[in-house]
Amino acid sequence: MPIQLETAMDTMIRTFHRYSSKEGDRFKLSKGELNCSCNKIDKIMQDLDASKDNKVDFNEFVVMVAALTVACNDYFVEQLKKKGK
Amino acid sequence: MPIQLETAMDTMIRTFHRYSSKEGDRFKLSKGELNCSCNKIDKIMQDLDASKDNKVDFNEFVVMVAALTVACNDYFVEQLKKKGK
Repeated sequence: MPIQLETAMDTMIRTFHRYSSKEGDRFKLSKGELNCSCNKIDKIMQDLDASKDNKVDFNEFVVMVAALTVACNDYFVEQLKKKGK
Repeated sequence: MPIQLETAMDTMIRTFHRYSSKEGDRFKLSKGELNCSCNKIDKIMQDLDASKDNKVDFNEFVVMVAALTVACNDYFVEQLKKKGK
């Protein structure tokens, strides 16, 4: 496995734990730790919190990162195809 | 969103396309492009290839990366708990 991919995976783990360990359950993100200044925090929390415990665990977090990454890739591929590459 | 997380997402996209563009369909990984020297390539391909087209597209790739990242995080948390942290 390319070292860059391992680094990306490590970054996801470290980023999650840097925020999740700030308050309460150190292995879950609270609404406050999600650190979202936007006014859609409740909607975001609702979408992420599959287990409905008002917190986001690592699995729920990775699903979000994966979904955002797929969306970014779709946009990237669309741009490539528009340029005929 | 923390810049490191954006970098990790960007790395996943770039790593996938670096390998997928080597041969055949540039938006899908063939068995050869998976570049796996282990003798379990057929099993890995079978597990990843949800659409059964003998190739791994980006969504299938991200599911693998997410699953590996969750497994790494589980191990990391287990070690923390063993140390009583």
